[in-house]
Order: sequence, then C-alpha cells, then structure tokens
Amino acid sequence: MSKKIILDCDPGHDDAIALLLAHGNPQIELLAVTTVVGNQTLEKVTRNALAVARIANITGVPFAAGCDRPLVRKIEVAPEIHGDSGLDGPTLPEPNIELDPRHAVDLIIELIMSHPPHTITLVPTAGLTNIAMAARREPRIVERVKEVVLMGGGYHTGNWSAVAEFNIIIDPEAAHIVFNERWPLLMVGLDLTHQALATPEVIEKISAIGTGPARFVLDLLAFFGKTYKQAQGFDFPPVHDPCAVAWVIDPAVMTVKTVPVDIELRGTLTTGMTVTDFRRPAPPDCHTRVAVELDKDYFWRMVTDALQHIGEVPIAP
Amino acid sequence: MSKKIILDCDPGHDDAIALLLAHGNPQIELLAVTTVVGNQTLEKVTRNALAVARIANITGVPFAAGCDRPLVRKIEVAPEIHGDSGLDGPTLPEPNIELDPRHAVDLIIELIMSHPPHTITLVPTAGLTNIAMAARREPRIVERVKEVVLMGGGYHTGNWSAVAEFNIIIDPEAAHIVFNERWPLLMVGLDLTHQALATPEVIEKISAIGTGPARFVLDLLAFFGKTYKQAQGFDFPPVHDPCAVAWVIDPAVMTVKTVPVDIELRGTLTTGMTVTDFRRPAPPDCHTRVAVELDKDYFWRMVTDALQHIGEVPIAP
Amino acid sequence: MSKKIILDCDPGHDDAIALLLAHGNPQIELLAVTTVVGNQTLEKVTRNALAVARIANITGVPFAAGCDRPLVRKIEVAPEIHGDSGLDGPTLPEPNIELDPRHAVDLIIELIMSHPPHTITLVPTAGLTNIAMAARREPRIVERVKEVVLMGGGYHTGNWSAVAEFNIIIDPEAAHIVFNERWPLLMVGLDLTHQALATPEVIEKISAIGTGPARFVLDLLAFFGKTYKQAQGFDFPPVHDPCAVAWVIDPAVMTVKTVPVDIELRGTLTTGMTVTDFRRPAPPDCHTRVAVELDKDYFWRMVTDALQHIGEVPIAP
Amino acid sequence: MSKKIILDCDPGHDDAIALLLAHGNPQIELLAVTTVVGNQTLEKVTRNALAVARIANITGVPFAAGCDRPLVRKIEVAPEIHGDSGLDGPTLPEPNIELDPRHAVDLIIELIMSHPPHTITLVPTAGLTNIAMAARREPRIVERVKEVVLMGGGYHTGNWSAVAEFNIIIDPEAAHIVFNERWPLLMVGLDLTHQALATPEVIEKISAIGTGPARFVLDLLAFFGKTYKQAQGFDFPPVHDPCAVAWVIDPAVMTVKTVPVDIELRGTLTTGMTVTDFRRPAPPDCHTRVAVELDKDYFWRMVTDALQHIGEVPIAP
Repeated sequence: MSKKIILDCDPGHDDAIALLLAHGNPQIELLAVTTVVGNQTLEKVTRNALAVARIANITGVPFAAGCDRPLVRKIEVAPEIHGDSGLDGPTLPEPNIELDPRHAVDLIIELIMSHPPHTITLVPTAGLTNIAMAARREPRIVERVKEVVLMGGGYHTGNWSAVAEFNIIIDPEAAHIVFNERWPLLMVGLDLTHQALATPEVIEKISAIGTGPARFVLDLLAFFGKTYKQAQGFDFPPVHDPCAVAWVIDPAVMTVKTVPVDIELRGTLTTGMTVTDFRRPAPPDCHTRVAVELDKDYFWRMVTDALQHIGEVPIAP
Repeated sequence: MSKKIILDCDPGHDDAIALLLAHGNPQIELLAVTTVVGNQTLEKVTRNALAVARIANITGVPFAAGCDRPLVRKIEVAPEIHGDSGLDGPTLPEPNIELDPRHAVDLIIELIMSHPPHTITLVPTAGLTNIAMAARREPRIVERVKEVVLMGGGYHTGNWSAVAEFNIIIDPEAAHIVFNERWPLLMVGLDLTHQALATPEVIEKISAIGTGPARFVLDLLAFFGKTYKQAQGFDFPPVHDPCAVAWVIDPAVMTVKTVPVDIELRGTLTTGMTVTDFRRPAPPDCHTRVAVELDKDYFWRMVTDALQHIGEVPIAP
Repeated sequence: MSKKIILDCDPGHDDAIALLLAHGNPQIELLAVTTVVGNQTLEKVTRNALAVARIANITGVPFAAGCDRPLVRKIEVAPEIHGDSGLDGPTLPEPNIELDPRHAVDLIIELIMSHPPHTITLVPTAGLTNIAMAARREPRIVERVKEVVLMGGGYHTGNWSAVAEFNIIIDPEAAHIVFNERWPLLMVGLDLTHQALATPEVIEKISAIGTGPARFVLDLLAFFGKTYKQAQGFDFPPVHDPCAVAWVIDPAVMTVKTVPVDIELRGTLTTGMTVTDFRRPAPPDCHTRVAVELDKDYFWRMVTDALQHIGEVPIAP
Repeated sequence: MSKKIILDCDPGHDDAIALLLAHGNPQIELLAVTTVVGNQTLEKVTRNALAVARIANITGVPFAAGCDRPLVRKIEVAPEIHGDSGLDGPTLPEPNIELDPRHAVDLIIELIMSHPPHTITLVPTAGLTNIAMAARREPRIVERVKEVVLMGGGYHTGNWSAVAEFNIIIDPEAAHIVFNERWPLLMVGLDLTHQALATPEVIEKISAIGTGPARFVLDLLAFFGKTYKQAQGFDFPPVHDPCAVAWVIDPAVMTVKTVPVDIELRGTLTTGMTVTDFRRPAPPDCHTRVAVELDKDYFWRMVTDALQHIGEVPIAP
C-alpha cells in the first residue's frame, strides 16, 4: 500500500533532495507539493519547487503556493545557506508546469478532508505557517491526518540560535500551534539530521549514478557543502529534509523516542526552542516523538535508490 | 452612499446592540455577520447571532461562523460578564435562518476581493482571530479594505488586566497581526467605550420605544448592568461594541487621534496591552488611530434611532 | 521637626536642583547624598554631586558612591539629555569635599538601622540599584524606613519607551524589588513631573535671585531646555527630581492616589513599565501611591525659596 | 599548596556531604561556609550547616548567613527532596558553634579582598544570590577570585523544569549576574552530577567506614534516595554538590569543555535554563566551562577518603 504524503517545503537544497526522494521512492504517493516562505521568499521557493519538478519529471502532482510570511514575526530567510535564489549552485531550468491555482492551505485542507481518515502523512520541511493555518482554518484535519513528520527543531541541538533551529525559529507561533495539536507528530530534528552528512563516500555513490537528476543533486551538495562550511563550520553538509521523508518510507531508518515537546515563544535566548522533557517516562497520551539515531547507510541507500528510480530526465532546451 | 461593513462579532450583549445599530441605521449596508470565539464558545456566540437576527428580522445577510479558538493561546471566555450562554438575560428565540456554509475567514476574503477596493469597512467587535487569519490567508485584502474599525484595547484603560482589554488579551497574536498590517485602523478602546454608559436616562429613552427589539435591548442591559456592577464595579454598564459601528455611521460621534499602537505579546503584567506611543507627533505614515472622546448624546440617539427604524418585529412562536 | 532624608541620585541636571532644594529648605535634614550609575557613569555623577556640594556650600553631609552598574541589565546612560559629563552646561568647580569611604548601600543601611524607626525618608531620584541592594542586604530596613518617595515611572506616561521611564527602565529588576517591598512608596512619575516645566516665568524668577547657585540653576536649565527640546520635543524642560523632594517638604504640593503599582520585567514593548491598576479601589493594604497633580506655583516657590535660603556662595578659585 | 575555598551552600543533603568532603580533604582549606536560602529557608539551612559542623567537628571556620530570599523572584524551597527541615533523615545535634556575626555577602567580600588575587575559589552549591550580591556590592572581587566552581544548571539536563535546574531557577537573575561576570566559571551541572549516583556499592563502602560522620552520610543518603525515587524516579540518588568540591581537589576527576553559557530570564518554558552554545568552537575569551564526564570511582574514593580522614567524632550529649 502506498504512503500518501503532502510535502510542505521551501526549496532549499535539502528540500529539493527530499522532493526527489519522495518522487523516486515507489512506496510514496506524493499527493501535493506545497510551498511556504522559509529558506527564501515564497516566490523564490515556489519557482524552485517547479524547477525541481521539471528536473525530475514530476507530473500529475499539484504544486501550490502558500503563506508568504510567518504568522507574527517578520520574514527571515537564509541566503547564507541557500544563496540568493534559495537554490544556488545548479543551473535551474524554466519550470514547465503550472502552479495550482489553489492556496496551499486550502489544498492541504481539501486533500485531507476528501481522503479517508488517517491516510495522509503531512511532511513539513519548512516553517510551519501553512500547517498551522490549515489546522486553525479547519480544525477537523487534526484528527484525520495520519501523522505529522516534520523536519525541524532539535532536542539538544540548535543552529539559528544556541538552542533553536531555523524552521521553528522563523515562525515559532506556527510551531507552537502544530506541536500542541493532538495529532501524532514526529520531530526529525537536528539531533538526527546532523547524522545525515553528505560525506565524500556519499558524493561518490551519487556521482556513480550519472543521470541529470543525480548531477543536479551533486551540484546542490557542492554549494550546500560550501555554505555549511562557511556559515556553520561543518566538514560535510547535513542533508536535513530527506530524513523526514525517509522515516515515512520506512521507520526502520531511525530510532525514535516518545517524549513531550513544546515550543518556547518568549525567551530572550530560547525563542523557537523545541523544549523536550526527558525527565520522566512520557505520559501515556503523549503525542510527540523525536528522532534519535539514523541508520546512515540505509538512509543514503534510499536516496541513491530514488535517484536510480527516477533515471535520466531529458530537459528540452 | 451606503457604508458597507462586515461585522465580525461574538454576541455578547454589546455585540447584539452593535448588530441592531448596524441593521437599523439606513446608512449602513451590512454585507455579512461573522462570528468568532470570544465572549463565549463559537457555537454559542453563533447561535446568539442568529437569534438576534430573528429578533430584529435581519434577512438577506449571510451569517458565517469562523474560528473556534485563538491562534496560539487557550480559549478564554467571559461568563462573568455575558453569562453561560454568552447572551444571558433575554429569552432567545430559536433562530429561523440558516448559517452560511462558508467559513467566516473565506467569506471575509471573498467579499473584500469581489468588491471594489476601499469600499468595505471591517468592524471587529471580538477577538481578532478571524481578521488575522484572513490577512494571512489572503494578504491582498489589506490594501483593499477601506478601514478596520475595531472595538478593543485601550490606551490608558484595561479591564481583563490592569492594562489589557478582553478582545485583545484573548488572542494577542491575532491582534498583533491586525494592528501591524498597514490598513487604516481605528481602535475604539475602553478609553472611549467607558463613556458609553447605559445610564437611567438611556434606559428610559429605550423603554419609551416600546417594541420587541427595544425590550430585548432593555433585557440585555439589565443583565449587563448587573454583571458589570458585580465583576468590575461599574454603576452603569459600558456598551462597547456599538461605538465602533457609530463611528462608521458618522465620525462626528467621537474625536480620534492618530498615534502609533502596537501589541505586547510577552509581558508578565502587560500581555495583550495596546501599547500607544503619545511621546511625539505621530509619523506621517502612521496608520493607526485611537478613539478619545464620545459625543454621548449623539451616540445614544443613533442607538434609539436605529431601534425606531427597526420597529416592531413579530416573532412567531 | 525636621524631615530626615537620604537623597539617592545621579546628577544629572534635575538631580542637582533636587539637591539644592533639599539643602536650601529648612525643613529638610539631609542625612546623606548617595550616588548611583544612571544619567551618566557612577564616576561622573559622583563627581557632579561633589561639585554641586561646593557650589551650594553643602558641608557636614556624607556623600557616598554606590553601585556602578544595574543589577542585571547593561549600563545605559542619557547623554542626549544630560550631556557627556552628566551635568553639561555650567562650568563645574573642582570638588572640595572628600567622598565618604563607605559604599552607598552600606551607608544607607547604617543610617536607617541607627536612627529610630520611621524617621528616615528615602528619596531616590535615579535608578533603584542602591535601594534594591540595601533592601536585599539588610531586609530589616524595609520596616524601619518612613517612606520611599521616588522620582521615576509614570502611570500613563513614558519617555525612554512608549510606556517606560528612564529611572525604571535602566534597572527594572531593582525597581521590581523596590516597588514590591512593603514600605510606603510614593511614585512621583512623569505624569506629575511633566507639569513641573521650567517656563520663561520660572526662569525669570530664578534670574531675579542673582546668586551664584541661582546662576548655576539657570545654566542647568538652559542646557536641559535645549536637550529636552531636541530629544523629546518639549517647549520647556520638565524638572523631575525636585518634585520628589517637594513632596517631602509639604505633601500639599501635589495630589496623590493610592493604587497598586508593579514593574514589568519581560515585555518586548513594556519592560520597565510601572504597571498601575486603576480598575478598582485600591485594596486596604495597598502600599503604593502615585503623584497626580502638581501645585505648580507652590512647587516653584519652594525652589526659589531654597535658592534664596542658600544665598550667595563664594567659590574660591 | 592548599586550595582555599569559600563554600556557599544551603544544606541540603548533598551540601552536607560537600561540606564533609571539603573538611575531610587535606588539600582543601575551608576559609568560610556561607549560607543562603535554597533547599529550605535561610534559618533552616543555616542551622543545618552548624549541625553538620558539629557532626564533623569543623572548628575555626566562620559560618555566616546570607540572603534570605532571591533577588527578584519569590522564595521557592524543595521539601519534596530535602524534607521539612532541609536535612531530614538523620537526627541532628544542637549546634555548638556560634554563627559569625557578619553577613555572608560581606564576609565573602572581605575574604576575597584581603587575600592575594587568584587564591580563593568560590564554590557555590546553592542559589547564587549571595555571590551575585557580592559581585554587585564589590565589583573588584570578580578579578580577584581564582575561579567560581558551582553546582547548578545543566547543558542538556533539567530537574525543576524540562530544561532548568533548581539552583538556577530559584534565582535566575542572580545566576545571570554570576554567569555574565568575567571570572573563570565552571558549571558542574546535572549532566555531570547525574553520574554521581549513590549506588549500593557506594553505600557499602561508606558503611564500611563505621564512624559517626559516615553513619550520618548513610542516613542522609537513605532519605535522599527515597525522595529522589519518589519525586524524580531515580533508582539511586544523584549526589550533586560534592562534585564541585571534587573538581577543586583534583580536576582529573572530571572532563570539562569550554563553551559559552548564559541564563534565560524570560522564557515561559525555559526560565532559569543555562543556555549553552555548542555550535562552534568557543571564542578565545570564553570564560565558562561545563563539566561533562565524571570519573565515578575517583569521585567516590575522594568522598570515602575524606570520611576516613575525618574519623570518629564524639558528640557530647
């Protein structure tokens, strides 16, 4: 049985790879790709998502743009990691599919309400503005969603501050909404994704594939590796977003722990922190889990298998 | 030329009178009545709104329900002021009109986007959840709205805390969104509405009207006066919400001042405060105004004129 | 019977005038002058205090320096109002008295503990660091002090932010300590002191005195008037600090109101606000009062009388 | 050369053991024991400290009481861990030494200012009120202290909240002062002290000593083990405070890491958190370190050696 997901993203280098993984894995049924302001402006990340669709020949999937700013805070983008376009590095083709006319929030609601309960997994790999808006606009989606598997946060790791991660800190109020709704939620945070490093061995395996989409991934990782080195001192860049998709494909790819998580909204040093309470066994009704340890080989095999499955994609001039 | 408004409310005793004033004043064209959690739960205030429609024979106007909880905070209602039903005091008839199937947020967006720019005034007399959601879901409404004239806040006066008013404190994040969008916004706050007291003279004038709707208002004020005495020590109850409608009817009913206003989200003692900066002349691009002094006679004449205009409404059993 | 005070100050133009008023009024017995970082660094304001002592021939009164930084926040000084020296404008003589070797906090404690209970009024006209430190170091002073009469805050008026005043915002934690201790406390805030404007009539009366100390005051007011015009748009400068001394001399100089006041420590827009709760009659055990209306003529007569009383002071070269 | 320390504590079961370790280790020269509100009221913890002095025959060391409440927050004590007395379990003797008349803050300042620079290590094992007060009252102590080695906080571990530890959360403003002063500071936090568990093997070794002080420790651990099981689910109680003393005796007992640490003062979920920034190598001027891994055998050997060294202490009836 296929695994239906809606990928809510802000491509973004690792978002692009997450999209390729979702598209190239036969178990995943990609119901929609929705975009939201994050790594860059809504306009840029939406254009990037459409360009990736062309690169990987993703057809028959609606791409819809969502919120162009966070709920309360001012827009904060990440050019130091993703460049001015949000997807610097590769040469991007002009998109050849049309954007869906629906707003991402409406599309998310429509899909969830029109599918049987507990069949759709939401996979947000960006700020949580769209997801929060959908939950407030149509509260019934909360009990219909199968699970929210999000890339964001970190229980002991931060990047945009000492203790907060970019996807959460750019719209902490949205994150507060999403983490406090009672749907099953898995936080695939920096603790996990900092294990998904694009090492030379990884690069070598992707190089061996030899297709256009694989070369696109290599171009992404070359740029991403450079900025992560400069901005955060990483030897090899952490490829965050595909980890969330990987869990949907097969939970065996990582260990997780059930533990309460909440979002700090007011701290001077801690706003946007995903405050995780390990003091006690989680209460029986705890609806949040955190990703702990990645099976790196399995994860990268998923990525390369997906690229193999996508195969060559001729891009007409 | 008629003044088109959307009344976004949570009836609520004074909301009910605001609705009667809007309906009974010939200059106002009531495009829609939308409801939102506030004085009571969404279910209760929506039912109350429909009951008031029957009492005043309001037909041909869509009534639509909106958000059932604030953006981020937990639901807080005001039974100590409005009773368990949200409209305690009068005997309410069963509604005889149907609720519009659209969500209030969608209806607000549809109306604004389908009317010419700068023709619709938003009149929120409740928490600002619906309005904030609409502004985030469809940012283009901000420059199309004529003005937001809201009852809420207070520059030197609080009620739910020393310095915050109920409509703002129950959803301060929504208020932050609404006050920071660049539409013209008039805050009709407690500084103004505490001048709109239902004194014995006022009661007497309404009594003289002698219609069912007028008796309904008297029943409202009797209950409202009692709770305001008990809960806040007022000799006569302040009738907040119709003041916002009154301004739309004729700005001559109050003086206003252009001054920057922002919303405090983090204070221990001040969350939900409408922080107003009187230190300097307002900058030229200041988009916020605050209501200062009410022409009480004129205001109450508007209310009684509206009741006269509504006339008798037979309510079938 | 004389009124014993400790003046805790950060001269500062209006602090200097407060010191002259205290020294020149026969009812006031000045037990000590203590200094604290505020309008300028501790070093500068202490030197200024000693210079004023020479200008007015204040002898036999210990001058002691206190805290050189706020409890928690970073140092913030006010050169835009008081200039680089903290007392720009007049030419200041070299001090001719020695600083007391004791720390201000210790001196305050010693004086209060060695005098009979309820005989000493603390008159802080600066940030409240010294007073807060004294209350924590020797909690017994709280019930021995007669009253704390402080210049700072404002119930409806701010200057350093929309709703906060300089003396409070520079050390809000200290203010929180001082306002929450159970001693009788009168807040002489901006609501009151913005009535104490050095108008041309005031200037004229002070000019008529013709002494060195009076000329010093005129020099102070000339500079103060200029900076207040530039920095805050005042036509005539508000002379804050002497108002607190004036109340000690004769409470008839202003009306006051008993009302709870607390300090906001966490707000984004409101930190340092003296949150005043006018919603209800103050509870019987309310220990805080706020100054409301100034008898301007009486106030300025106190100032000119004090200058007359000080008379001419020859300053040796 | 002996290692001079001032132990600032709130006994407290683990404080008592820290005091025994400091007294019983020949390398430590205990200059003073100062007390502060924390595990229980100042009165109780001071009495407990004096009782421990009698139990271990500690003479010639001044014991001085300090602050009886935190700087800003209300008093919060920990009877669920330490019982009503603050040292429940053992039968405590009446103290037979007098409390030093000086205030702890004054004594700390006197000792540091009268000893050569960089000879005294401050070892706070309680809330940091005394230390913060001393640093503000006499700023020159900061550069004279050799190091502050404190038990408190945790970089990835909380106990009184998900992310904050008791000693910090009870007076976060004091902690903010202490962590932000530029003295060398080692945080021996829960990450480390949760490795110092009083396991059955530990109990057995202490039992073998057979002296009165050893039996006192066993009584302490019996009670402490019971409350830690009930209140926090520990199988064996973590014996926090002696770890800080152990580091002073020999840094080989634990590994540490240089990393910036700051204190969160405003968070809803995170107030009192020791926010530690592991994102990058610490800057060259970083003055804070955190304890990471304990050599458990060595640590417990230090404790048993100290008890051996103290030997039998006859307590007269």
